[in-house]
Amino acid sequence: MTIIQSPSSNYSLSSSSNPSPIGFNPCTNINVSLFSPKKSCPTKLSVQSNTSYKNAVFMQDGAVVTRGNASENEARLKLKNELLSVKPPQEQKDGASFGFENYKSTVSITVVGASGDLAKKKIFPALFALYYEGWLPEHFTVVGYARSKMTDTELRTMVYKTLTCRVDQRENCAEKIDKFLERCFYHSGQYDSLENFAELDKNLKKHEAGRVSNRLFYLSIPPNIFINAVKCASLSASAANGWTRVIVEKPFGRDSESSGALTKALKQYLDEDQIFRIDHYLGKELVENLSVLRFSNLVFEPLWSRQYIRNVQFIFSEDFGTEGRGGYFDHYGIMRNIMQNHLLQIMALFAMETPVSLDAEDIRNEKVKVLRSMRPLVFDDVVIGQYKGDSRGGVSYPGYTDDKTVPKDSLTPTFAAASFFIDNSRWDGVPFLMKAGKALHTRRAEIRVQFKHVPGNIYNRDIGTDFDLTTNELVIRVQPDEGIYLKINNKVPGLGMRLDRGHLNLLYSARYSHEIPDAYERLLLDAIEGERRLFIRSDELDAAWSLFTPVLRELEEKKIKPEYYLYGSRGPKGAHDLASRFYVQWGDLREED
Amino acid sequence: MTIIQSPSSNYSLSSSSNPSPIGFNPCTNINVSLFSPKKSCPTKLSVQSNTSYKNAVFMQDGAVVTRGNASENEARLKLKNELLSVKPPQEQKDGASFGFENYKSTVSITVVGASGDLAKKKIFPALFALYYEGWLPEHFTVVGYARSKMTDTELRTMVYKTLTCRVDQRENCAEKIDKFLERCFYHSGQYDSLENFAELDKNLKKHEAGRVSNRLFYLSIPPNIFINAVKCASLSASAANGWTRVIVEKPFGRDSESSGALTKALKQYLDEDQIFRIDHYLGKELVENLSVLRFSNLVFEPLWSRQYIRNVQFIFSEDFGTEGRGGYFDHYGIMRNIMQNHLLQIMALFAMETPVSLDAEDIRNEKVKVLRSMRPLVFDDVVIGQYKGDSRGGVSYPGYTDDKTVPKDSLTPTFAAASFFIDNSRWDGVPFLMKAGKALHTRRAEIRVQFKHVPGNIYNRDIGTDFDLTTNELVIRVQPDEGIYLKINNKVPGLGMRLDRGHLNLLYSARYSHEIPDAYERLLLDAIEGERRLFIRSDELDAAWSLFTPVLRELEEKKIKPEYYLYGSRGPKGAHDLASRFYVQWGDLREED
Repeated sequence: MTIIQSPSSNYSLSSSSNPSPIGFNPCTNINVSLFSPKKSCPTKLSVQSNTSYKNAVFMQDGAVVTRGNASENEARLKLKNELLSVKPPQEQKDGASFGFENYKSTVSITVVGASGDLAKKKIFPALFALYYEGWLPEHFTVVGYARSKMTDTELRTMVYKTLTCRVDQRENCAEKIDKFLERCFYHSGQYDSLENFAELDKNLKKHEAGRVSNRLFYLSIPPNIFINAVKCASLSASAANGWTRVIVEKPFGRDSESSGALTKALKQYLDEDQIFRIDHYLGKELVENLSVLRFSNLVFEPLWSRQYIRNVQFIFSEDFGTEGRGGYFDHYGIMRNIMQNHLLQIMALFAMETPVSLDAEDIRNEKVKVLRSMRPLVFDDVVIGQYKGDSRGGVSYPGYTDDKTVPKDSLTPTFAAASFFIDNSRWDGVPFLMKAGKALHTRRAEIRVQFKHVPGNIYNRDIGTDFDLTTNELVIRVQPDEGIYLKINNKVPGLGMRLDRGHLNLLYSARYSHEIPDAYERLLLDAIEGERRLFIRSDELDAAWSLFTPVLRELEEKKIKPEYYLYGSRGPKGAHDLASRFYVQWGDLREED
Repeated sequence: MTIIQSPSSNYSLSSSSNPSPIGFNPCTNINVSLFSPKKSCPTKLSVQSNTSYKNAVFMQDGAVVTRGNASENEARLKLKNELLSVKPPQEQKDGASFGFENYKSTVSITVVGASGDLAKKKIFPALFALYYEGWLPEHFTVVGYARSKMTDTELRTMVYKTLTCRVDQRENCAEKIDKFLERCFYHSGQYDSLENFAELDKNLKKHEAGRVSNRLFYLSIPPNIFINAVKCASLSASAANGWTRVIVEKPFGRDSESSGALTKALKQYLDEDQIFRIDHYLGKELVENLSVLRFSNLVFEPLWSRQYIRNVQFIFSEDFGTEGRGGYFDHYGIMRNIMQNHLLQIMALFAMETPVSLDAEDIRNEKVKVLRSMRPLVFDDVVIGQYKGDSRGGVSYPGYTDDKTVPKDSLTPTFAAASFFIDNSRWDGVPFLMKAGKALHTRRAEIRVQFKHVPGNIYNRDIGTDFDLTTNELVIRVQPDEGIYLKINNKVPGLGMRLDRGHLNLLYSARYSHEIPDAYERLLLDAIEGERRLFIRSDELDAAWSLFTPVLRELEEKKIKPEYYLYGSRGPKGAHDLASRFYVQWGDLREED
């Protein structure tokens, strides 16, 4: 039973914190809310997710790898191009509803680095999905900005190519794609040219047509040209009368110092509330649900502390390696790439105290408190590994250093396990274990909460010798197959007393028929709406780096050799040893399924 | 994953408390255990349950109503009779393994009242199921005892008739049925004749053939001839060198006084540990599982008190009336028939403190403590109802007093709701609500644990006005479709924040492929093994009656009129008013499914 407001109801989580003076809600004219969908006001959402393997996009190293069916898309594209060429976008625009309602506001989304993989595979499709579902404001413009020369039509063709993968079987899709592409434009320019950005500004003004203008810049470019682009966007292309926001992507430096320098440089041109540091893991459905689970269910409240929880595990594994794209990764390694951001962010959400409210600043305040209550990692808390090649069943799997983009003598960890403690009254003494790796036997991201043994258990003699088997465990599986389950002991039906671990199970795919939106959709929408809850604040970032910087430096200065593990294996043995130091076992390796 | 001992492993719950000097375990000769199966030592149990509606037996009023396919059974029976008549049982017995191992013990099970409905529909089938699954000792004899004249073959024919309903599609079933029936004999006699029981004794001795004899009497006879039968069995037919036990059925009196008198009379002939008062609800799978859930799962431990639980509901409903068999029922009414025994027993198990061990006396001690901590029911705590006729869709449903076996002016309640409080430190102030009724809209028996609202819920504004909708609820469904589920709030996948009640779900039928044994199988086996955990001790019975006796007397003395409700409805409005006095709602009436 669904109990709550539809997106078109009278208030939203973001409305109170939104600084925009004018809302976009077409359903309730008297109501200022940016959290409402356009026109159709759908109550059922059905944005396609990328959980299927085919045509899926895999995030690795901040770059993107596609496993798609390219030729199929090309075929569809040809047909589409013919249709598009018949109707030039300018003509359409004149005939549309633009131009009459100048008092309304508009949002211009500029994707800086428009020809990059992330833009093509994630950002444009996410923007289209938001448009398709009616979440974008009535007036919006999408501009691709990059150095290469390209016409609007060429950009549209490029964007269209990826859209076909995602929505080709949807209702009115062709029409919606056409309408969306009409709003897409291309602007060629250097990333460090004030002049080029000034031209962009002119171009944007043309599309904004005198409305209150709000501008979002998505910087999908390498870190070394980051600051220059921010400078140019800020100085030459800020919105004249609305807001200007910038989404920036990791890496946010390599350590405390470089991150601090980056933040300092950003703040020369932007205020804190203009900076949206994206961590796409925070946009995952079950990460969003974590707070709902914790704070809206009384049954979890007494359990969520050192009193009942024995340890918590944050597990990330990929079943593929760098696959020829290891150049970026090698500079950062798995600890910076996955742990210091994604896993640490989830851990902070998991462990934080109840925030005063769901407002971004309240949540981020609590997360910072968790990070600041943690001891920095030391050398003994960490195990690092690197995968080596293997061949099984006639297939050979390359080792990390077989990747041509990776130095032959690289010591960069592709696997790491680490143990943390939070020195506050709730979590004192509870190990928080993290594990992240590439080229492992499975692909998954999950939180596992292992509860303590039952004290004075009257069923001990029915349990056998391995008490760990019978401890309760709550598993929040972020991907794939989103779901939540609680392992409990119950009696096997039948005469006699045999205990068994049943799962109290909530599998999303079984319960929710509509698709789970991609993390980028949520995050882009939040940035448009000024909702900062899922973005990382400067002081959070500082606290996160200060936990990792000492050990990262030590590993690199001492040139510590990673423990090697086979491609497709369960990772290095050291990870098990780390867990057993705390008398626990990794939950994912005990799973029968 | 199954973690625990198979029935053939080295110890069992009952072994320690079993007074028999010699065990039956054929698998481990050195090991004395009565909790082990015969020969095959199966680790997987698959005893057929009676959960399907067709051919099912419905317990009502202590009597039995069958909804079966009689003619189909008759046809099979004819064929069977021919086979049986070819092989007289005596011949078979001589050729079997009997007679050589006199040092072994034997169990004789005498069903007193063998021609009654309960015996035919429940007791004999349960004994056969135990035999089929290898739970009975190697040497056993089943004797039907009743007043009518009948031959062994006639008894076997009668028993066979009901067996075919239950196991006709099982492996080797025909052979197993033959073997079982060979062990079944009939003995005709009066229930109050010392002489007739002395003849039974002789007959039993013949089958026991000099082995250590253990004797179980199942008294399936009306209450007025109870004591005489106990007297005769005890004085004339007790086991000479093994144990003698008597299973007695409700009604255990009509109030404190009559129950006390009955107990006193029983104790003239039997010791407390020979009396097995059966409450077949305690043999239900999920009632057995209740203690496992509570005491072997840490996650429930902090929740199980006034701190987190708002109220607990024990709900029993039948979707049919007395259907022409209301004579017995009318004398007792729903409060005696369902509440004072079944529901109160489950409530005591639910609410008790952790027992010292799983031994019967430890558990029963804790249950008595709960009962003694409760205030006796008073008039204001109770709502009574009686169903009246209705006709819908061309079908007419009779009212209670339309039943020809019921007095036209009967005020006997066919529905009751009551509220209890347990005045101890764990449960002070928590309403325990009970509801039981006939001829309601649904058939179910369940425990519903409603948790409190989340204090200071930061999601309140996403919840709407009815906070009850979002409180967590743990449902233990005893029948039909055995299962456990926990209602939790989670976020509806999609952009925006909508909360939804998901079910963390463990449905037995989905997880456990083998059938759930009938309650009588468990209880008969326990009685054979001397396991008293699921039987009611005298002081428990006294405590239970003292809770109900004052209000039962008041209702009858004041001739309180029940509130009438339509056959097939959700019961009288008074039940809702009772719940709302405690600001709660009946969970079964809120279910969407």
